[in-house]
Amino acid sequence: MRIDNLQYANWSQKIFRQMREGRVDAVHVTIAYHETFRETVLNIEKWNRYFTEFPDLIMHAKTAADVDRAKATGRTAIIFGAQNPSPMEDDIGLVEILHSLGLRFMQLSYNNQSLLATGCYEENDPGITRMGRQVIAEMNRVGMVIDMSHSADRSTIEAAELSTRPIAITHANPKVWHPALRNKSDEVIKAVTDKGGMLGFSLYPHHLKGGTDCTLTSFCEMIARAAEKFGAASLGLGSDLCQDQPDSVVTWMRVGRWTKQTDYGEGSAQSPGFPPMPTWFQDNRDIDNIAEGLNRVGLSTEEVAGIMGGNWRLFYQNSFAGQSDQ
Amino acid sequence: MRIDNLQYANWSQKIFRQMREGRVDAVHVTIAYHETFRETVLNIEKWNRYFTEFPDLIMHAKTAADVDRAKATGRTAIIFGAQNPSPMEDDIGLVEILHSLGLRFMQLSYNNQSLLATGCYEENDPGITRMGRQVIAEMNRVGMVIDMSHSADRSTIEAAELSTRPIAITHANPKVWHPALRNKSDEVIKAVTDKGGMLGFSLYPHHLKGGTDCTLTSFCEMIARAAEKFGAASLGLGSDLCQDQPDSVVTWMRVGRWTKQTDYGEGSAQSPGFPPMPTWFQDNRDIDNIAEGLNRVGLSTEEVAGIMGGNWRLFYQNSFAGQSDQ
Repeated sequence: MRIDNLQYANWSQKIFRQMREGRVDAVHVTIAYHETFRETVLNIEKWNRYFTEFPDLIMHAKTAADVDRAKATGRTAIIFGAQNPSPMEDDIGLVEILHSLGLRFMQLSYNNQSLLATGCYEENDPGITRMGRQVIAEMNRVGMVIDMSHSADRSTIEAAELSTRPIAITHANPKVWHPALRNKSDEVIKAVTDKGGMLGFSLYPHHLKGGTDCTLTSFCEMIARAAEKFGAASLGLGSDLCQDQPDSVVTWMRVGRWTKQTDYGEGSAQSPGFPPMPTWFQDNRDIDNIAEGLNRVGLSTEEVAGIMGGNWRLFYQNSFAGQSDQ
Repeated sequence: MRIDNLQYANWSQKIFRQMREGRVDAVHVTIAYHETFRETVLNIEKWNRYFTEFPDLIMHAKTAADVDRAKATGRTAIIFGAQNPSPMEDDIGLVEILHSLGLRFMQLSYNNQSLLATGCYEENDPGITRMGRQVIAEMNRVGMVIDMSHSADRSTIEAAELSTRPIAITHANPKVWHPALRNKSDEVIKAVTDKGGMLGFSLYPHHLKGGTDCTLTSFCEMIARAAEKFGAASLGLGSDLCQDQPDSVVTWMRVGRWTKQTDYGEGSAQSPGFPPMPTWFQDNRDIDNIAEGLNRVGLSTEEVAGIMGGNWRLFYQNSFAGQSDQ
């Protein structure tokens, strides 16, 4: 089982074919950054067209069983997620509506303060808001995973505590390896994994030691250290691959409609665009390089199989159904 | 199996309890008259609250199997429908989105001209529009039933011809029995039933011979004649019960936001409100009166069982799944 639990590509037949070439069984795709509910629905409509157009390459997955079916029929399962709670606007009823439409991951905040939680770029983090507590309970009820990848530390720790079901950091790396603002302290990772949650390792160059020049060995050694600390069963991949996107998209991700000024996020005025990916992970066809790298740094076959996809699959199985259906 | 394939009540615990008292296994409920997509989603959110609040009385049904499960667990299955295509706005992609949210019936027009078809109150009926042809194909593909209850004759006959799957008139009676504008000519009914479609008999007084004073025997004799003409297997109930609604709601149904003037629809300035229901069908508890009436006018046990619910159940089984899932 090979699962990449975070991509946001400029989707095309070419990319779906590469998913098949890499034998990637499931991809969690971002369908909304700053979109409203109606705009998110338009994005789902676009995905529905892809599913109709490329039924031999991809299929929509709402359950772990759908992922198994995709694997059995030689297709890649597509799981919907949002990087921001903007699709639910200020309406808690939309959590269940979005779940019905297939949304399985939702970040409680993206860099900034949201109605629910604080983002990692804010100076102050007052923790989960009043509405945030209600929405966490509702996400727990319907089976939508709380993703804290772009949230601030206190909010993340509180979310892990408040949630009755395991939560996730779908795409980030340990700060001890590379001290990027978006990477996570051991304390934050432990708060998530101690309660059965997952950490997905990011391949976005700003999250990598040495950036684009990060070596596969360094990346895999970082994972081996994380496995010792947090347990290999809590780990997976969330590459953050933004393949074929024009630089205008990274601007949209950072700026949305919340400011009229330029915000470079993890970039800078000197390099405002998407950074080039490492040579050993250019696209979905390269996913097995990581499995090989993990083998070389001494992880067991079973641990590697889990990190490459088995752990996410089990997490999906425990996370995507409603509480009353369990 | 007892199915009422059209109600639009002012929903409450009282009504859900009456559904159970009447042992009604499934009800097709109207969730939108003139609502936009977002407003329809709000109505679904309201239903989601009912499902959470009254899990022992009702459950949401998206398939015939769900109806069977409701019956087996002593609950009433609730099936969503729209009396107007307004929830899909001008966006064909919303057909699949609404199907994902559970919409299983949609009228192509409600009294007036729509983007898709002509309503029965228009003077001229140019038939199914260009967009209407596209939407019929899309509804066929995803498994959403084309309902022509409030449409004009030519549009209805064309819809039956264009659709590759059986369509429905969920709530109306034969015009030969009572010549109301909303009742249907034999030619229109035959166009629908000859292709496997269904006619649901209405108990809305304006559709009844003698109105509120219509006798059960007259109603059941009308059904017996229809069974001779169109075949009993094409027939079911669609009571149009609007229980506990204030008269402001019938005004909304008729007027929506399309006029600033008063439109009395089937009513009049003298009696603008909801007419009182016949004594023998006041609410869901009375549904067995109809079964008894049908037995008395000489229909066979099998025919009565079909009309009371078996025919709709089979129709659901053949209609609600997507074409690729069949």
